[in-house]
Amino acid sequence: MQTEFITLNPKRNVTLAAYIQEVKGDFRYISKRPAILILPGGGYQYCTNREADPVAMAYLKAGYQVFILKYSVKENAKWPNPLEDYEQAMELIRSNDEKWHLYKDKVAVIGFSAGGHLAGCAATMAKNKPDAAILGYAVTKEDLIHQCEVTAPDVVSAVDYHTSPCFLFATRTDQVVPVINTIEFTQALVKYDISFESHIYAYGPHGFSTGDTSVQHRDTFLCSRAPHWVEDSIEWLKDMFGDFDQDAMTEPACKKHVTSDYDPMLSIQCTFGYLRSCANAREIMAPFIAWLDEHREEVARHIGPAAYERTCKYGMEGLYQLADSRTFQEVLSNTNFSQEEIHRIDTCLKQLPNIR
Amino acid sequence: MQTEFITLNPKRNVTLAAYIQEVKGDFRYISKRPAILILPGGGYQYCTNREADPVAMAYLKAGYQVFILKYSVKENAKWPNPLEDYEQAMELIRSNDEKWHLYKDKVAVIGFSAGGHLAGCAATMAKNKPDAAILGYAVTKEDLIHQCEVTAPDVVSAVDYHTSPCFLFATRTDQVVPVINTIEFTQALVKYDISFESHIYAYGPHGFSTGDTSVQHRDTFLCSRAPHWVEDSIEWLKDMFGDFDQDAMTEPACKKHVTSDYDPMLSIQCTFGYLRSCANAREIMAPFIAWLDEHREEVARHIGPAAYERTCKYGMEGLYQLADSRTFQEVLSNTNFSQEEIHRIDTCLKQLPNIR
Amino acid sequence: MQTEFITLNPKRNVTLAAYIQEVKGDFRYISKRPAILILPGGGYQYCTNREADPVAMAYLKAGYQVFILKYSVKENAKWPNPLEDYEQAMELIRSNDEKWHLYKDKVAVIGFSAGGHLAGCAATMAKNKPDAAILGYAVTKEDLIHQCEVTAPDVVSAVDYHTSPCFLFATRTDQVVPVINTIEFTQALVKYDISFESHIYAYGPHGFSTGDTSVQHRDTFLCSRAPHWVEDSIEWLKDMFGDFDQDAMTEPACKKHVTSDYDPMLSIQCTFGYLRSCANAREIMAPFIAWLDEHREEVARHIGPAAYERTCKYGMEGLYQLADSRTFQEVLSNTNFSQEEIHRIDTCLKQLPNIR
Amino acid sequence: MQTEFITLNPKRNVTLAAYIQEVKGDFRYISKRPAILILPGGGYQYCTNREADPVAMAYLKAGYQVFILKYSVKENAKWPNPLEDYEQAMELIRSNDEKWHLYKDKVAVIGFSAGGHLAGCAATMAKNKPDAAILGYAVTKEDLIHQCEVTAPDVVSAVDYHTSPCFLFATRTDQVVPVINTIEFTQALVKYDISFESHIYAYGPHGFSTGDTSVQHRDTFLCSRAPHWVEDSIEWLKDMFGDFDQDAMTEPACKKHVTSDYDPMLSIQCTFGYLRSCANAREIMAPFIAWLDEHREEVARHIGPAAYERTCKYGMEGLYQLADSRTFQEVLSNTNFSQEEIHRIDTCLKQLPNIR
Repeated sequence: MQTEFITLNPKRNVTLAAYIQEVKGDFRYISKRPAILILPGGGYQYCTNREADPVAMAYLKAGYQVFILKYSVKENAKWPNPLEDYEQAMELIRSNDEKWHLYKDKVAVIGFSAGGHLAGCAATMAKNKPDAAILGYAVTKEDLIHQCEVTAPDVVSAVDYHTSPCFLFATRTDQVVPVINTIEFTQALVKYDISFESHIYAYGPHGFSTGDTSVQHRDTFLCSRAPHWVEDSIEWLKDMFGDFDQDAMTEPACKKHVTSDYDPMLSIQCTFGYLRSCANAREIMAPFIAWLDEHREEVARHIGPAAYERTCKYGMEGLYQLADSRTFQEVLSNTNFSQEEIHRIDTCLKQLPNIR
Repeated sequence: MQTEFITLNPKRNVTLAAYIQEVKGDFRYISKRPAILILPGGGYQYCTNREADPVAMAYLKAGYQVFILKYSVKENAKWPNPLEDYEQAMELIRSNDEKWHLYKDKVAVIGFSAGGHLAGCAATMAKNKPDAAILGYAVTKEDLIHQCEVTAPDVVSAVDYHTSPCFLFATRTDQVVPVINTIEFTQALVKYDISFESHIYAYGPHGFSTGDTSVQHRDTFLCSRAPHWVEDSIEWLKDMFGDFDQDAMTEPACKKHVTSDYDPMLSIQCTFGYLRSCANAREIMAPFIAWLDEHREEVARHIGPAAYERTCKYGMEGLYQLADSRTFQEVLSNTNFSQEEIHRIDTCLKQLPNIR
Repeated sequence: MQTEFITLNPKRNVTLAAYIQEVKGDFRYISKRPAILILPGGGYQYCTNREADPVAMAYLKAGYQVFILKYSVKENAKWPNPLEDYEQAMELIRSNDEKWHLYKDKVAVIGFSAGGHLAGCAATMAKNKPDAAILGYAVTKEDLIHQCEVTAPDVVSAVDYHTSPCFLFATRTDQVVPVINTIEFTQALVKYDISFESHIYAYGPHGFSTGDTSVQHRDTFLCSRAPHWVEDSIEWLKDMFGDFDQDAMTEPACKKHVTSDYDPMLSIQCTFGYLRSCANAREIMAPFIAWLDEHREEVARHIGPAAYERTCKYGMEGLYQLADSRTFQEVLSNTNFSQEEIHRIDTCLKQLPNIR
Repeated sequence: MQTEFITLNPKRNVTLAAYIQEVKGDFRYISKRPAILILPGGGYQYCTNREADPVAMAYLKAGYQVFILKYSVKENAKWPNPLEDYEQAMELIRSNDEKWHLYKDKVAVIGFSAGGHLAGCAATMAKNKPDAAILGYAVTKEDLIHQCEVTAPDVVSAVDYHTSPCFLFATRTDQVVPVINTIEFTQALVKYDISFESHIYAYGPHGFSTGDTSVQHRDTFLCSRAPHWVEDSIEWLKDMFGDFDQDAMTEPACKKHVTSDYDPMLSIQCTFGYLRSCANAREIMAPFIAWLDEHREEVARHIGPAAYERTCKYGMEGLYQLADSRTFQEVLSNTNFSQEEIHRIDTCLKQLPNIR
């Protein structure tokens, strides 16, 4: 492994450490690697090594190129300095993809506590968004981050449908960063249909890092599941980035958005509710909706007695409530439309751009 | 193992299966066991066996007495029938603690989907609350449960500080029960300071049960972490109920409430904010608050520069924001009060009943 | 789950408990299940429940039909009574495959301590051999089993190439059954090319069963890896029996023999050494061996300098030592024979029966 | 993390890479760390990076200082060159314990394939023995190692009671290093009462390293348990070295020898058989043996019917066979000697040096 230590901003004492693993040679089928940028915590007053090297080792073992950013703290932490540090680091990483043997569209960020706030900012506000973000007992709410740095922004309200996919973890009993910071962030991700995974462990102190006994003392009141986030986040990244293959990564299992409502073109994989709202899909949807109106009670009976009762009472509105969050494909599978007809509808939809 | 099949309500076809394990004899140090009551899902239209026996086996292996309730469904599911079935089952289980060799104050409930709705009702509304509740991809919101059974109640709004501790799991891509049902329930648990653990996995279909390939086909688009809820819930129950010991269970690691704000007597383990709001603690708190007012900038500087800046700007209100969610003990540890003084304050507080 | 309790031999007090899980219905794609027969330990003096029900639960959860045999003990344990009990149980299980919804060619046996001795006898001596055998801290050597029952046979010396594939586990510090019982058994399995997996954990007492705290007290000096045998054995059985699929099991990853030297027909998958010893393959092998003799130093140089030196010194014998344990296919891949020639050789070999 | 690259022997191209982690500072309670020296494989023809950095990362994450030795290969591999390289590296590591913040009595070695042969030599023949050795699909038998390097020694026959504790793993289907290399080594460890743990996985190719998909292609025929050796070896090292504590490591769970027969002084923790063979213990043992002779049938009956029968038939010899491998303490617990008498015997034994 090669290490490189780069000063990004001497005035603000911002540094980037690069841990770069070999490719090709003994690692025959590997010509590039995914990468991860670590943002340690420390309340914007310092950057703790407890959340730097021990975290790096886990992703190095999993095959990643790893970077650690010591961003602006204390009097230098005035916003947007830390985010600028992140932007500078991410730009440097992506523009050195050849030299550092990495996939520039597979660069994750991981941050802890205040570093988790910065990772959240990266995932929501940055020009150079990460391809995935891991937030450990992160501060996301304005009221709390202001206790560290009064100029730092709220993250929850910055979530939109451009936000990066996120993996979150925290402990329920964290006295420093209340768990509501994690929960409200997941709510925002649901609202904008962003892929995520979230683990809230029953108990443990703030700042437990990997939970290894070399980082967090073995007598700590930390629940047995808490250290699982490390392996779980590696598996989740595999779902987001794909797995190592011959000079490539395999197709990822997960997309950024949970539904297809944000794909470039429409399809029967979009939700029924979304398609109903698309002006350019109206013509294609109209005959189906007419048909549905005619057969609504029959379809509802197929779904179940409560659905039936509901549809009898509220008509189409009742049926829409049942169907709007499902894909159009699933809705169609509850009708007697033939495979050919369904395929024809899909083909038509796929010619329509998804205008937002 | 002995099995018993009991008809609880012949008219509504409600049955209870009991899987009872041996005690003493070859199991020398075990004279009683904790227990769990399983509520399978099925949209209040049926009770699926996929969420009954395979789930039972996991807890039997872990040493539990296990019960499976087939509650009222279809036309019998009018509220409060299913909850009455639960009450009847729970009463029967607890009153047969001797016969069935179980700890009557260590009986958990686990429910899936609509069964998870019923488990949530048990944890919030029942007379016979479970000592812990596990909710798998559970329906908790009124709008959704009404699609199954229009008379069934909302669970989120029923949470209060009497609610049982909960373990929750779900997949982010569940098309049948949107994940927001899990998230909003955890928010309510935070509000009332109830202990919980929550795992939201990146993807997987509704109703994956244990995720074993004997229950959910191996080709399912189900993320690798999803089956971990089984082992994790067993470890969590160990934290809530204690572990097997000589004719007893060990002291549990977790309490029902995260803070001490719901203990019978006050103490320095209560949060600072809560103690400030207690009329009967005012006299004891007054000298400390006076002292704090005098030394507020010094204490704030001790916490950090942002805290200092904030306190200079907002005075005591700024400091309260920092301190209110921490225990009084932790607040005191940031002052120069001596161990003796701190102990004296605690002793005084402990003589005061916690009046809500 | 249905339970059935059958008396196999009233005089000797031999019983079989059957734990039978549902198929079809809610378990749509499952029409049969693999099965396992449990033989608890107890020094042929009794059959402990600690190694019966808790073990059963693990395999039930994994989707198996499970049977527990209480075989002949004490004065009834004179050989071959216990083995006869096993034969009777196995015959009953396999002949009731329809009734009990099980694959009769996917029935494993698991035994502990003296029950492990009986499982070992089943795997080596029985008429009704199990399709896989799991041996937990098993007695396999005559000198030790004679301390329990003087008429019981040695198992190590009974291994031959008909022996069932085995999964073995034990602890290094077992004072009751020295670990050499496990090691010598694996040596015999190697000799006869039988598939196996073996885990010897650093420390733990005899008879720890599943290692769950409901079976073995939490304060036991038992190393953290020991309870892993349960999950590992389930994964190993999946390798031997295949995984659940639509009304079938998938193709198993593992065969009974490690090499193809025991397949019905010869092939380039057989080891080079074995093919050299087959009279009926001589004609096919001859040209290759002549070629090899001619190019031996070139081939050896291809393998490495030590191989080269060795071949220069010892001639063909040196090369044979390097090649005999490898498959003929691998040996051929170190030559410049074309894919077509290799394919032709394989086709010829595949027409020859494997005569032993 | 600091990295250092040291040339140990420029003529033979021997190098040592040191990956040194921080102590104190952010790692408050850690002032030293245990260490591990990695010996990659490559048939004494090269040292593969596949078994260097990826392995290093696992132990770095676990808190270790890590060293990688590229030892003498090819024409420089003549014995004892590689072992001398090891000795030089180990001496350097231990003599720099202050500079590199490591416990010099807690330095493990790990080797793979031919590197496993070298690790085995280190554990058996070196002056600077490691405190624990991990052997991955290691060559231990002379016939095989001679295929790589004809001057290299047999390891199995070099085991004695000074050998370091060992953790071994291999796959059953390894075509390059037959599994018998691992099995015969464990047998030798049993003979000399050395602590060990061993995992033989059902299938997988030679040289799979950590089994991560970044090292071994995901399509490899490698069984699911094989990658577990990494975590398991870390837990085993914790048992041998203790866990991180305040400026110290906790007391290890495991000793080098399984029994107390190699302790400096005798005690009732020694095996009965060994104590019977100690000339200086004869006087203390005599009255007990006389007593045993008198009560032998009574004691044997206490153990069980087979033991009783055996003792009736063979007299004291029969009883010795049952008792010799157990600790004297356990033997005494089967008699009616009082706790005081037992304690008195132990006190007397503890005054006797263990002369071998």
